[in-house]
Amino acid sequence: MVNIAVLGFGVVGSGVAEVIAMNEKQLAAHLGEPIRVKKILDIRDFENNPFSELMTKNADDVFLDPEISVVAETIGGAQIAYEFTKRALSAGKSVVTSNKELVAKHGVELMQLALSNHCTYLFEASVGGGIPIIRPLHRCLAANRISKVAGIINGTTNYILTQMSEIGTDFADALREAQQKGYAEQNPTADIEGHDARRKIAILASIILNGAYVDNTVIHTEGISSVTQEDIAYAKRLDSKIKLLAIFRHPEKARNSAIVAPHIISRQDPLSVADGVFNAIAVRGNAIGDVMFYGQGAGKMATASAVVGDILDAALHHDRSAHITPWYNAEEPVLYDHSDSFVKALIRVKPSVTDRRIESVFPGVLYERVDGVVDGEVGFILGTDRSMNEKTLLSGTAELGDLFISRIRIY
Amino acid sequence: MVNIAVLGFGVVGSGVAEVIAMNEKQLAAHLGEPIRVKKILDIRDFENNPFSELMTKNADDVFLDPEISVVAETIGGAQIAYEFTKRALSAGKSVVTSNKELVAKHGVELMQLALSNHCTYLFEASVGGGIPIIRPLHRCLAANRISKVAGIINGTTNYILTQMSEIGTDFADALREAQQKGYAEQNPTADIEGHDARRKIAILASIILNGAYVDNTVIHTEGISSVTQEDIAYAKRLDSKIKLLAIFRHPEKARNSAIVAPHIISRQDPLSVADGVFNAIAVRGNAIGDVMFYGQGAGKMATASAVVGDILDAALHHDRSAHITPWYNAEEPVLYDHSDSFVKALIRVKPSVTDRRIESVFPGVLYERVDGVVDGEVGFILGTDRSMNEKTLLSGTAELGDLFISRIRIY
Repeated sequence: MVNIAVLGFGVVGSGVAEVIAMNEKQLAAHLGEPIRVKKILDIRDFENNPFSELMTKNADDVFLDPEISVVAETIGGAQIAYEFTKRALSAGKSVVTSNKELVAKHGVELMQLALSNHCTYLFEASVGGGIPIIRPLHRCLAANRISKVAGIINGTTNYILTQMSEIGTDFADALREAQQKGYAEQNPTADIEGHDARRKIAILASIILNGAYVDNTVIHTEGISSVTQEDIAYAKRLDSKIKLLAIFRHPEKARNSAIVAPHIISRQDPLSVADGVFNAIAVRGNAIGDVMFYGQGAGKMATASAVVGDILDAALHHDRSAHITPWYNAEEPVLYDHSDSFVKALIRVKPSVTDRRIESVFPGVLYERVDGVVDGEVGFILGTDRSMNEKTLLSGTAELGDLFISRIRIY
Repeated sequence: MVNIAVLGFGVVGSGVAEVIAMNEKQLAAHLGEPIRVKKILDIRDFENNPFSELMTKNADDVFLDPEISVVAETIGGAQIAYEFTKRALSAGKSVVTSNKELVAKHGVELMQLALSNHCTYLFEASVGGGIPIIRPLHRCLAANRISKVAGIINGTTNYILTQMSEIGTDFADALREAQQKGYAEQNPTADIEGHDARRKIAILASIILNGAYVDNTVIHTEGISSVTQEDIAYAKRLDSKIKLLAIFRHPEKARNSAIVAPHIISRQDPLSVADGVFNAIAVRGNAIGDVMFYGQGAGKMATASAVVGDILDAALHHDRSAHITPWYNAEEPVLYDHSDSFVKALIRVKPSVTDRRIESVFPGVLYERVDGVVDGEVGFILGTDRSMNEKTLLSGTAELGDLFISRIRIY
């Protein structure tokens, strides 16, 4: 019998309890023994709770119980969750989580703590919800030098952008609708401003760098709140969609860089298949070529699927080396200023901007005009053939002053 | 130092040696120690071979060398490969392979042999080439009851169908071109008749069934050689593509079934994104919902990526329980006749076939007419809302006799 505890009975935590109840037989077959949720820790009271007998408000019921070997931390945030995770790992209990904020912030300390206590800290659910990505990246693709990972890894923004594109609603209305449907939080900042995606791409980057910690807070991040129907009209003209992409580049002969920003992405690109709350993550390796993972990036049961997958792994494999390589703080910087990165972008400007003006503010940059999409303005696609870097994009648009309307990067 | 051997220096075998040479640093970082190919076994001579010093024609150089702990079997087929795999496993050496024929045929015996010799038999590369699918299915999705897996898992047929659809060539020409480009074998039967896809779907089915062996030879299989431009015209009218799909269904309240056949698949379905030599595999679990894996399903380096990933896993994890659950022969049948399965299909018939005739030969089946796609014929979409099973499809089309032109299933 494997005994586990769930910390936090919110959306994901209750999903974990439900998945274990629902798939009891399957889990026992996989483990070779039964598994049960022994305790659920939450300070709140819940009505009509089918797991009421398992509830406790006393943390000692979890941390002092030697029978409990694996703890699912589904509290979220980086405060109580942080304290409880440390307490569990210090007691030699493996911890699995969907908490990207905590992993992105304290991953090094928590993985080292797990290592020294002969237990493990797993976080498959922290990126891409239920989509298998961390373990495949770490193990199945281990033969590759990964040069790039790019993902639509925030379901809230992808839902909003899909609604804006398909229904024609503007950003504010789409956000309100997403909140009503439970796809966006009442305080939606972390999602719409790209902070959530930034944490997730930093986690993937650390995996790709064999455990060298990537501090997500230094990643250049732009959210989707300024995306308009006019931007979408240009994307459609280019047979493309607008998606919030999180990209980590790990080129062999240049510096690592990362960015989170809305991008125009061709409908021919497999990544663009992810609409609504779905996520997709594309990985490029020097042996595998391009590979993509697609599925529900959030949601109670999908996220619980990944958490319970980690629970099984933690319960089954006492050989801790079967897990993720513990992170560490590298001596050299692992992520550099992205302003040297090549970039392709669409800029929208007043119609008085001539080709000559473009050539003067974006010297040496290859470009083409996109006319007739929105009245009273003109578009330019800048930077084909790696002829522009981020620095030039920013300085050039600044120089255009009042003539500049908006810019959006092209993937 | 991890010492490995490669058996068979063909396309995949040479790819394995090249990936290990190319990514030496990455592999050592992952393993914590260097890895080298110590021997390559092949009875043939190779010109301009950068690995000539490692070549041997004497199998004892591999099997009697205690330093060699992992063997990559890239011979193919189920004869010499079978003997060599048994010899390696009996000597306690783990074996990794891309050989779907051998796994599909002798998987039970070989996994049991590995188990009793405290080594492992891994075959991530046997399905989907480089795409991570077996390990994600087995481990990351272990919390789910998987009810369906459907895949485009044969690159040769997908290349041919893509060419037929995009360029308008007929089957014979597209096959010839695929052969010239090396995407099809000189004897293409195993690919175009669906035998290769059949073996692969049987392997995935056994993983889903927690190791219960699925005999691929009983799976109803239709190849793509009878697909015509007229079929493709109907697919396009339906905003769809034609793909060779391999499907395993594991419904909770009905019998397991499997089929390999060309299907009409909507362009809205994420699976349909796989064109050319790319593969895609969709999995449905009761917690995760729908998830999809996409990438190069064949090719030297992509396949080698998966083989080398398995080599690392075999070398790293002495805890064999970290690997695939060994297969076994179940007492009860695990796969049933598919003729009871619900099916939706397009049939093409002579224009004299009236709605009334359709109602009489397909009693109780819901249908709709598709007119005007090909001169001198008419199409019917049969079996919406689970109103038709395979048996009725076959008997009804037989009853139409000379009025029947072709049928193609709809996914």
